[in-house]
Amino acid sequence: MTLTVIPVTGIGEIAPGDDLAAIVLDAAIRSGITLLDGDVVVVTHKVVSKAEGRMVAAPTDEDYRAVALAEATEVLRRRGSMIIAVTRHGFVCANAGVDRSNVPGDAVVLLPVDPDRSAHTLRVRWERATGARLAVVISDTFGRPWRRGLTDVAIGVSGIDPILDLKGALDATGRVLEVTEIAVVDEIAAAADLVMGKAGGIPVAVVRGLEWVCGDGRAVDLVRPAAEDFFR
Amino acid sequence: MTLTVIPVTGIGEIAPGDDLAAIVLDAAIRSGITLLDGDVVVVTHKVVSKAEGRMVAAPTDEDYRAVALAEATEVLRRRGSMIIAVTRHGFVCANAGVDRSNVPGDAVVLLPVDPDRSAHTLRVRWERATGARLAVVISDTFGRPWRRGLTDVAIGVSGIDPILDLKGALDATGRVLEVTEIAVVDEIAAAADLVMGKAGGIPVAVVRGLEWVCGDGRAVDLVRPAAEDFFR
Repeated sequence: MTLTVIPVTGIGEIAPGDDLAAIVLDAAIRSGITLLDGDVVVVTHKVVSKAEGRMVAAPTDEDYRAVALAEATEVLRRRGSMIIAVTRHGFVCANAGVDRSNVPGDAVVLLPVDPDRSAHTLRVRWERATGARLAVVISDTFGRPWRRGLTDVAIGVSGIDPILDLKGALDATGRVLEVTEIAVVDEIAAAADLVMGKAGGIPVAVVRGLEWVCGDGRAVDLVRPAAEDFFR
Repeated sequence: MTLTVIPVTGIGEIAPGDDLAAIVLDAAIRSGITLLDGDVVVVTHKVVSKAEGRMVAAPTDEDYRAVALAEATEVLRRRGSMIIAVTRHGFVCANAGVDRSNVPGDAVVLLPVDPDRSAHTLRVRWERATGARLAVVISDTFGRPWRRGLTDVAIGVSGIDPILDLKGALDATGRVLEVTEIAVVDEIAAAADLVMGKAGGIPVAVVRGLEWVCGDGRAVDLVRPAAEDFFR
């Protein structure tokens, strides 16, 4: 089945206390997008964090570093002015997810306190407003070891199982699949990023046509337990 | 701009010596897909490897392990029956990219010798046949540290720069972007995987509507030099 990834334009700058659910829905309607059953709405965490007031002033590089350290539960590596750190949610990323791109003034943006809950709140609002059965993915841009460049991944989900588990499924030759766990919400976040653009300020996209598994999993379930992780 | 990701069905089992370019083009035509300027054709490496004869018999687990070790230039970790290894191309992945899912009989499939060259060959064939300016991405399914589940990434590219470099670009607030290198071909591979399905045997998808940067970069450029990598 063909997948479409539709950018939602016209959302504009988000400020603390803004009703993000209503703003996105208005922008979608003005863009001619009607949310349908099975749509996955991907939202970059930055607008979620801004609406939730997760910004602090950090005018200098030292302030920025201090905020990142305060958000980290463990620092895995230091790399020039950057730390690779574990966040309270368990995500491993640069500067514990603290970011100062696309932020006005001296502020830096922290990750949402509970991105799965943020996703849930948005999903409930949008499902009530539209009557459609939806999933919501909140994304952030992470680096990774071994490979250059960054990709978007999921840091919050609602309504969809983050892992597509093919355990026991057979391949086309009748053999049991060895690859059994697909991080489908990370692939959804990556697909959405292709229409967002880092500089363009398109923070929301609708992924339509995907056959996804309805579920109540959480993005934090994507965190590989440290004991199972050979690269911590 | 809306992105569409179109699966190419009806490709069937690929055997050594098969003319993969012709088979995919036939299947696309039968699926009603006409390749257009700007299309990115994503091909899972497995059909490329099969067509190129990159299969060896490995009936037992010990044989499988031996083949993986022979394909590795360095073993980073051992994990049960799996090794995390560096391939000759520089990719870090499970079993040095050797895979036995979706392979008939006792065979296992190795990575293509030069996936960038494989991508180039396919692109030239398809561009000649269609007159369209295309990009080709060859994908594989990799795990990653810290996060559960696997995602598809690019291991070969042709016609497109693998990294979208935003260095010097300004964000919506006029500040220079800190995130400057997007691994756009990995995001393309991930988007394509959403329509392929691991068990369903859809090895090719067309990503349409993306504004990509024409270039002669190679997927091996995505390999982070070991000296820059804090997690090797």
